Amino acid sequence: MSMTQTPYWASLQADIEAYLKQTITIEEPLVVFEPMHHLVFTAPKTTVPALCLAACELVGGQRHQAISTASALLLMEAATYTHEHLPLTDRPGPKPGPMINHVYGPNVELLTGDGIVPFGFELLARSDGGQNSERILRVIVEISRAVGSGGGVIDAQYRKTFGGGLDGEEMCHVEEIRCVVEKYEGRLHSCGAVCGGVLGGGCEEEIEILRKFGFYVGIIQGMIKLGFKEDHKEVVVARNLAIQELQFFKDKEVDAIKTFLNI
Amino acid sequence: MSMTQTPYWASLQADIEAYLKQTITIEEPLVVFEPMHHLVFTAPKTTVPALCLAACELVGGQRHQAISTASALLLMEAATYTHEHLPLTDRPGPKPGPMINHVYGPNVELLTGDGIVPFGFELLARSDGGQNSERILRVIVEISRAVGSGGGVIDAQYRKTFGGGLDGEEMCHVEEIRCVVEKYEGRLHSCGAVCGGVLGGGCEEEIEILRKFGFYVGIIQGMIKLGFKEDHKEVVVARNLAIQELQFFKDKEVDAIKTFLNI
Repeated sequence: MSMTQTPYWASLQADIEAYLKQTITIEEPLVVFEPMHHLVFTAPKTTVPALCLAACELVGGQRHQAISTASALLLMEAATYTHEHLPLTDRPGPKPGPMINHVYGPNVELLTGDGIVPFGFELLARSDGGQNSERILRVIVEISRAVGSGGGVIDAQYRKTFGGGLDGEEMCHVEEIRCVVEKYEGRLHSCGAVCGGVLGGGCEEEIEILRKFGFYVGIIQGMIKLGFKEDHKEVVVARNLAIQELQFFKDKEVDAIKTFLNI
Repeated sequence: MSMTQTPYWASLQADIEAYLKQTITIEEPLVVFEPMHHLVFTAPKTTVPALCLAACELVGGQRHQAISTASALLLMEAATYTHEHLPLTDRPGPKPGPMINHVYGPNVELLTGDGIVPFGFELLARSDGGQNSERILRVIVEISRAVGSGGGVIDAQYRKTFGGGLDGEEMCHVEEIRCVVEKYEGRLHSCGAVCGGVLGGGCEEEIEILRKFGFYVGIIQGMIKLGFKEDHKEVVVARNLAIQELQFFKDKEVDAIKTFLNI
């Protein structure tokens, strides 16, 4: 059973979507909020936001402590997905997607993506209610770096859209796919796990273990998207490395988070 | 003498640029950082970041307390400017700008804008050094709302690019220009002034006065860009309202921040 078919994932995902539905109301100006609502809820679901909640629970935190951060992560991914499908003159034609090419024109897509990102940061900054502001600031730094220029999503996007290595370096196709999976799925899942660990009150050692565990989860989930089977060598290697990291939590309940290694 | 020719503005602007030059180093991956550096430093200068520092000083704060926020505001404006000039199929042709159409293609411009915004939030979140994290979170909320969907920049961008009122409402041209100036320049300057007030340790009353004062500064600066003269009725009205707000600070040194009313 793949991760996204497990009851655990379904329960985490349902909580995140309920929170977002409460948060992104369709209000004035409608021309801004209506596409935002649509694009957020129709973008493909990933395992990053749920992993954030799972990591929070693993270190002994309560799910609600990480719910706005998990939701912000979902928003960031929806914004990236929206911009990724913008038709631009120096890109290959727009890829077909479940929401793009149909409902809104490129101008609305651009502006909606541009509006979703600050909204995500607002959710983060408003999430503490006067408590744990240091943890929130730390989470904001982690997310900024992962979705921004620090060798994460933006870097991966360059590779995806230009189809070449950075700085003119030549890469064979497989190498390049691996690199994009690492920088995109690996980096984002790693970020999600770290944020959950921070917000759940994990110690520094736990947080660093979660950083590595999240990275392997991202590699596995990225490979699933590319159609890899569960006995593929690279999947097996990543899963073994992930399980090795989880041994650190031997006195904790790891069965739930282990489902993220399902393919 | 216009605001941007005064020694006070020049000194504030020089400090912000020096801080940004230290912060945005050209590092690997070059394909990400080189355009970011270029687009940030060639985007047109506005009075928003400097107003943030001036407001901080007005309430008795030190300039360095607001320098990363002022720099983040400059980054947000550079990102908006970059995306504003992206050629999209459902927009009028790209407007000529000092940096667009020449150095980078649309794909790099899109991704660079997308990378600059999280970098700005990272600057904000890293700026406190463990102190005043509540103030920083408050500033993040203010900036998210102004540059995001909350009736600020995104709303103004819709109007600018579609040239029409929201929700199908019809507006005459002058009304529409006024609306864009209010939502764009007014909102951003208001945000800049509030952030400076918060970081400089202003009381709630001072902060709310700065919110109004900043709004009028934005109206005036927006009208300058549109070529209005200093004796234009709307400029005179905005300046009088701004000066009225400053009377609240009668025991403070207001001459410096008053230069923001120059046209």
